[in-house]
Amino acid sequence: MNNDNPTAAVILIGNELLSGRTQDTNLNYIAKGLTEIGVRLAEARVIPDIEDTIINVVNELRARHTYVFTTGGIGPTHDDITAASIAKAFGVPFSRHPEAERILLDYYGDKITEARLRMANTPEGAELIANPVSKAPGFKIGNVYVMAGVPSIMQAMFDGVKPALKGGIPILSYVVSSFTPESQIALELEAIQQHNPEVEIGSYPFMKQGRVGVSIVTRGFSEEVILKVSAEVKSLFTAKSGEVIEEGWV
Amino acid sequence: MNNDNPTAAVILIGNELLSGRTQDTNLNYIAKGLTEIGVRLAEARVIPDIEDTIINVVNELRARHTYVFTTGGIGPTHDDITAASIAKAFGVPFSRHPEAERILLDYYGDKITEARLRMANTPEGAELIANPVSKAPGFKIGNVYVMAGVPSIMQAMFDGVKPALKGGIPILSYVVSSFTPESQIALELEAIQQHNPEVEIGSYPFMKQGRVGVSIVTRGFSEEVILKVSAEVKSLFTAKSGEVIEEGWV
Repeated sequence: MNNDNPTAAVILIGNELLSGRTQDTNLNYIAKGLTEIGVRLAEARVIPDIEDTIINVVNELRARHTYVFTTGGIGPTHDDITAASIAKAFGVPFSRHPEAERILLDYYGDKITEARLRMANTPEGAELIANPVSKAPGFKIGNVYVMAGVPSIMQAMFDGVKPALKGGIPILSYVVSSFTPESQIALELEAIQQHNPEVEIGSYPFMKQGRVGVSIVTRGFSEEVILKVSAEVKSLFTAKSGEVIEEGWV
Repeated sequence: MNNDNPTAAVILIGNELLSGRTQDTNLNYIAKGLTEIGVRLAEARVIPDIEDTIINVVNELRARHTYVFTTGGIGPTHDDITAASIAKAFGVPFSRHPEAERILLDYYGDKITEARLRMANTPEGAELIANPVSKAPGFKIGNVYVMAGVPSIMQAMFDGVKPALKGGIPILSYVVSSFTPESQIALELEAIQQHNPEVEIGSYPFMKQGRVGVSIVTRGFSEEVILKVSAEVKSLFTAKSGEVIEEGWV
């Protein structure tokens, strides 16, 4: 399947993801959102809170992709080093953003503290990303979108920037699932893929209630072709005596 | 915190992770297991089912880390290209592994098919990783452990290889949590970190029942130092009128 859509990378920043303390859910949220608007998520990285690592990975990926999204490390504590590291990645000063400062002063009033004001520091030239949940903003510099790690905040930030992203042609997906082991349909499925190079057919085995099954997902740009291919997949299940237990656009 | 423990990288392989169809849980499982035995997970990548990408990422990471773990793409269908790609990464032939073939023949009996036998193909020189769930094995070549993507199978494979990994000194973690905004303790927490460079103090904000709180995790090698630092963290919460709602080794 040719896919000339814009590409993106996600960088999940945080020691807690690599120690196993935290189960990430941000990647999946961003991935779904990008798929909806026709941006191809090409890769993701999970990296620790280490300045050099953040600088190198951000610079590598922002050169390679239309968009880069980072999550994590923009709070007020000593281990929140993402924002300052990204200033270094871009080679610009890290300084107080007047609008961010105003937002925090408005929100905290006389409870403002030096630690809270740290969250108003951004790389020079950054535009703010609104945080409707807890006010302290994220920011965008160049093609890099820097967001919080707390899922509810990250989701609100991403939902805010998504409408302004320049997407491509959305990819459509249709799933057909059956309690059939994928090895029973593998050869025929490969033949269907070979005859239909304009779609991408994925085979995802699962286990439910102790039974082995498989979801076949057909992805592409043409509704007509996807439905034609999915009908062939359904016939294949039927021929193997496997009932279709689920189908539909996903 | 100095950490001379062996390092590892995880490579999650699969278009479904990047399209948002699937929420990964394998990284977290492997991360916890490595932390237990004193192996530092230094980075993770999420990459698509593209041969050149798999080859490049595997070769980059196996040169850099003591261990590399991959998940996904070792089933019987056309989109399962991980095993063949790893043979190319190592520059060795991709061929039928006699022991894997025997395992599959024993298991499937007269239901064996060409598609199922594909799962007996490995890079030459690979050692098998047992699959107690559905038999088709993973494999190890050099320092690269190639495992299934289905979580129950991946977990069984990882549990099988873990005892033979050469770990380091296990890192201990103690958590203290409170319904206190992290910005209220940020400056004092930074001072505690500066006075105790032999531990790593992480600050992880959360929202529960609409209330903002924070978990402070102190990690290190010395139980005594960790408990001393955690006592300071507790005092800090008490001083800020924030009740400690959770504490303990994690």
